[in-house]
Amino acid sequence: QDPQERRTAVPGVATGLAVTGAGGDVLYIEASLADPETGGSGLQLTGQLGDVMKESAQIALSFLRSHGAELELPVGDLKDRGVHIHVPAGAVPKDGPSAGVTMTTALASLLSGRRVRTDVAMTGEVSLTGRVLPIGGVKQKLLAAHRAGITTVVIPKRNEPDLDDVPAEILDALDVHPVADVRQVLALALEPAGSAAAPQEPEVPLAA
Amino acid sequence: QDPQERRTAVPGVATGLAVTGAGGDVLYIEASLADPETGGSGLQLTGQLGDVMKESAQIALSFLRSHGAELELPVGDLKDRGVHIHVPAGAVPKDGPSAGVTMTTALASLLSGRRVRTDVAMTGEVSLTGRVLPIGGVKQKLLAAHRAGITTVVIPKRNEPDLDDVPAEILDALDVHPVADVRQVLALALEPAGSAAAPQEPEVPLAA
Amino acid sequence: QDPQERRTAVPGVATGLAVTGAGGDVLYIEASLADPETGGSGLQLTGQLGDVMKESAQIALSFLRSHGAELELPVGDLKDRGVHIHVPAGAVPKDGPSAGVTMTTALASLLSGRRVRTDVAMTGEVSLTGRVLPIGGVKQKLLAAHRAGITTVVIPKRNEPDLDDVPAEILDALDVHPVADVRQVLALALEPAGSAAAPQEPEVPLAA
Amino acid sequence: QDPQERRTAVPGVATGLAVTGAGGDVLYIEASLADPETGGSGLQLTGQLGDVMKESAQIALSFLRSHGAELELPVGDLKDRGVHIHVPAGAVPKDGPSAGVTMTTALASLLSGRRVRTDVAMTGEVSLTGRVLPIGGVKQKLLAAHRAGITTVVIPKRNEPDLDDVPAEILDALDVHPVADVRQVLALALEPAGSAAAPQEPEVPLAA
Amino acid sequence: QDPQERRTAVPGVATGLAVTGAGGDVLYIEASLADPETGGSGLQLTGQLGDVMKESAQIALSFLRSHGAELELPVGDLKDRGVHIHVPAGAVPKDGPSAGVTMTTALASLLSGRRVRTDVAMTGEVSLTGRVLPIGGVKQKLLAAHRAGITTVVIPKRNEPDLDDVPAEILDALDVHPVADVRQVLALALEPAGSAAAPQEPEVPLAA
Amino acid sequence: QDPQERRTAVPGVATGLAVTGAGGDVLYIEASLADPETGGSGLQLTGQLGDVMKESAQIALSFLRSHGAELELPVGDLKDRGVHIHVPAGAVPKDGPSAGVTMTTALASLLSGRRVRTDVAMTGEVSLTGRVLPIGGVKQKLLAAHRAGITTVVIPKRNEPDLDDVPAEILDALDVHPVADVRQVLALALEPAGSAAAPQEPEVPLAA
Ligand SMILES: [Ca+2]
Ligand SMILES: [Ca+2]
Ligand SMILES: [Ca+2]
Ligand SMILES: [Ca+2]
Ligand SMILES: [Ca+2]
Ligand SMILES: [Ca+2]
Ligand SMILES: [Ca+2]
Ligand SMILES: [Ca+2]
Ligand SMILES: [Ca+2]
Ligand SMILES: [Ca+2]
Ligand SMILES: [Ca+2]
Ligand SMILES: [Ca+2]
Repeated sequence: QDPQERRTAVPGVATGLAVTGAGGDVLYIEASLADPETGGSGLQLTGQLGDVMKESAQIALSFLRSHGAELELPVGDLKDRGVHIHVPAGAVPKDGPSAGVTMTTALASLLSGRRVRTDVAMTGEVSLTGRVLPIGGVKQKLLAAHRAGITTVVIPKRNEPDLDDVPAEILDALDVHPVADVRQVLALALEPAGSAAAPQEPEVPLAA
Repeated sequence: QDPQERRTAVPGVATGLAVTGAGGDVLYIEASLADPETGGSGLQLTGQLGDVMKESAQIALSFLRSHGAELELPVGDLKDRGVHIHVPAGAVPKDGPSAGVTMTTALASLLSGRRVRTDVAMTGEVSLTGRVLPIGGVKQKLLAAHRAGITTVVIPKRNEPDLDDVPAEILDALDVHPVADVRQVLALALEPAGSAAAPQEPEVPLAA
Repeated sequence: QDPQERRTAVPGVATGLAVTGAGGDVLYIEASLADPETGGSGLQLTGQLGDVMKESAQIALSFLRSHGAELELPVGDLKDRGVHIHVPAGAVPKDGPSAGVTMTTALASLLSGRRVRTDVAMTGEVSLTGRVLPIGGVKQKLLAAHRAGITTVVIPKRNEPDLDDVPAEILDALDVHPVADVRQVLALALEPAGSAAAPQEPEVPLAA
Repeated sequence: QDPQERRTAVPGVATGLAVTGAGGDVLYIEASLADPETGGSGLQLTGQLGDVMKESAQIALSFLRSHGAELELPVGDLKDRGVHIHVPAGAVPKDGPSAGVTMTTALASLLSGRRVRTDVAMTGEVSLTGRVLPIGGVKQKLLAAHRAGITTVVIPKRNEPDLDDVPAEILDALDVHPVADVRQVLALALEPAGSAAAPQEPEVPLAA
Repeated sequence: QDPQERRTAVPGVATGLAVTGAGGDVLYIEASLADPETGGSGLQLTGQLGDVMKESAQIALSFLRSHGAELELPVGDLKDRGVHIHVPAGAVPKDGPSAGVTMTTALASLLSGRRVRTDVAMTGEVSLTGRVLPIGGVKQKLLAAHRAGITTVVIPKRNEPDLDDVPAEILDALDVHPVADVRQVLALALEPAGSAAAPQEPEVPLAA
Repeated sequence: QDPQERRTAVPGVATGLAVTGAGGDVLYIEASLADPETGGSGLQLTGQLGDVMKESAQIALSFLRSHGAELELPVGDLKDRGVHIHVPAGAVPKDGPSAGVTMTTALASLLSGRRVRTDVAMTGEVSLTGRVLPIGGVKQKLLAAHRAGITTVVIPKRNEPDLDDVPAEILDALDVHPVADVRQVLALALEPAGSAAAPQEPEVPLAA
């Protein structure tokens, strides 16, 4: 796949891992900030998210509202610009707390303008202090990440024992990072600020 | 049909394609902006839209709130003027994510003042970054477009394999455009800014 | 009936047509604007209206918010004064999209100060661009209009074929106007601005 | 009963008539306006009111918001002071449109500072233009009014035929006023502005 | 019990009487006003209150919003400071209108800074004009008050006949006050403004 | 466990005790304040909290809004900064009033910048005046605290009789503090203001 066509080719998109009825799967968390001129405000959540997943988004946002300035993120944008978090596919119901790290990463990517590494996927609940809490489905999620061409996976430190159940060839192929704090996820997953890569916007002029 | 009587004769209306119990059908997405003098604000959605379709409208609006300025659209209007998206017929319940491209096009048409081409219909889910995601019912939708006199149809790139199931005479008669980004839809479907056509308002004076 | 006692003797009231369990019936749509001094704002809907009928009211209001200035209506009033639309009788549930033209007419009457002609009744769904869309029950509605002493009835152009089922003596007695745009309804149904008629308020002084 | 102990001894209380499982009954509509200093605003409704009765209160308020100034009521108070309408007893569910005239009268009494006549009870739906529409239970309501010592009853003009079913001795004892407009009710039921009567507040000092 | 440990040792707490599945019981209504610096506003209700009891709190507040200034209460506090009414125990559902007098007393105590007499308990519905309306369970409530060491009980005047069912020794031990207006309750239950008593705040310094 | 890795290593986190289907358990209450620059406001509650537990959070906040200044807490922060209270794990439903003391402590810790002692756990309902009310499950909670390495436990004074059921070796190992007022909890559980300890933020730089 052309790197420019990858979902994470623009800041604000992070790759998560989910367990579905049919095993594990990769999902993308997309975040956007409204142009201040447009008067957008507040937090908009779409993608048929369940209660627990909506709360994960609120936790991610509150973490950045209280700790973002320490991370040198321009948090004033959260005041003047509406935040929208969407999880395609639009018609598929989703729930659970394990997208917490992915939501936090998508928002931090958007605020910083630093893209998320295309080779990294992640899973983990986040608490309000940034702690990464354990989740389920580690084996299925790693298999799905590998199938999707991901090479680096972030998991909660407290899920390390679950790696015993993952086939050795998968573990060999993947670079698995157990973490205890979401700040570690950000340090690992965000590309450097000035990294030269695909231009931020696809070259599709609107003018007729 | 007299061109002036067509639904897309004014900016803000785009032609979509839907699957109903009785096969495919053409539907129209109508968007309006309140006169700033009237104090209208926010986003109003009508037409008995289901949860997923309401979220599609919010995604379309957020896409333009964050990317509209790059497309040289006057996005400040979204602050000062209430947006209303309606999908006739008013009493028929509708749902699903596949009107995403149509809603985005109707809003961009309204903001730009450029009408949507009357010969174009479209279908496709839109993500928050403008990516066009696959939908269902390609065959029924193309048959319906053809029946309705449409000559150009926009579909998601990832739905190209579904064209195999469409009768050859329909494919011959239609100009089918598979796209990956909603910006491609806008470039294709919006008429040039200064195109001479039917006047924007039917000549029905109110004065008695 | 004394003309002054007619429901449409004051601006803001229009005569609609409905289908009930017992055939057709005449109904009145009443609209009011709060005195700006009273701090009223927003849109209030009463009369036990169902979802679809509430949406019709929002569409009527948005149509006037976006197109009212072209019709030389004082749309600034919609910012400073609360709008209330009520459909008596208060305890009877009502629903459906066919009061769209009547709601638009009542609001335009109120804004313009021009009364609605007492001899005119109307039925038709309205889209956000002002298009008049087809409705059901044409025969019952025309019979009810005739029973109520109405002489002019406005119906959607796309309902013209339904006139075949209406008894000839009813069609002879009525002046039926098929229309495609709500602006035609307003031109037909609103009395001229300076028409001499019953004073706007019944002469019932409050002072004891 | 000591006149000072009557429910209508203060402005803002009007006597209504209801049909209950056990025949008719008298009920009181109480209205209050918050001291502007207290920051109260909006419309508060209590008394376990059903949907239709809540709408009646909104109609009464909108009637006064749009027509109160013509009646020389100080409608600016509706902007600066919260309105509360309560219908005791607090735990008894109530519904229906027939308290419309009573609610309008209680609010007009409160705004004008003119008490409602203690000997008057009333029943009738009110439309947004002030028209009084017919209600049910005339016979039971008149019997209840008579039992409660009421001597004057206001009913809708269109309920006049129902008086045939009321026992002659009740009709003899009562002064029944059929009315078509709520302005007639106000003219009849409100005491003159400067009428000398019980002081507005019972003499119960709080100071210890 | 040490007077300082009594629930009513601080302004804003009043002793009510309730009927539960197991006879009567004493309950406490607690009210608080937010420090204006904290930006608290509006009315907060907690204690798993049912609809009728929530309405009682709104009536108590509206009574003080409209009549508090006559009672020389600093009602401007209701604008600048959030009001919270809580009824412990937090997990026990409660409902009914009979806490009206207790809620009004707790709020008046808070606004005036005058504590509620520790020996007084009360029961009674309050109307918007301050009238005290009858309630149920007089016998059980008086028994419960006596068991709890209460010596003075306020009941609605219209409940006087129910005293016939109360054992004579309870009536002898209690000072029962039937009242018709909530202003009588306040005059009876609030301690004088400058009464020397336990300090308003327990002496538990936070500093470590 | 490394002290720096403890949940209470930062201000705003307090250790509570809960009863679950499988006996008692330790839970953490996390509170955060949004950076005023971010425009956050109001109270956000997450962790799948039931109605009673949500009310506990509102009571804790109101207690600090009305009594925080007496405790020398910077309560103005509650106006300018959004408050978020979260109770991990995110997907586990929780309810009941017994986290009242823990919520109050977490908020007071956050406002004061003083950490909560890592060796202290607590349980107790709080009333609006700060009174600590009895809760259930004392035995299971003390066993859980002991298992988790806690050495000091705060319980409601009115739960002292329940200590009879707790095994002697647990009581020996624990320092149990029965309290009647939440101010006692704060004095006991908050570390001194200038205590040298782990730095407030883990050293995980975001810069790549
Ligand atoms: Ca749920
Ligand atoms: Ca590896
Ligand atoms: Ca749905
Ligand atoms: Ca072709
Ligand atoms: Ca419906
Ligand atoms: Ca004719
Ligand atoms: Ca209802
Ligand atoms: Ca008579
Ligand atoms: Ca209820
Ligand atoms: Ca006695
Ligand atoms: Ca509950
Ligand atoms: Ca011990």
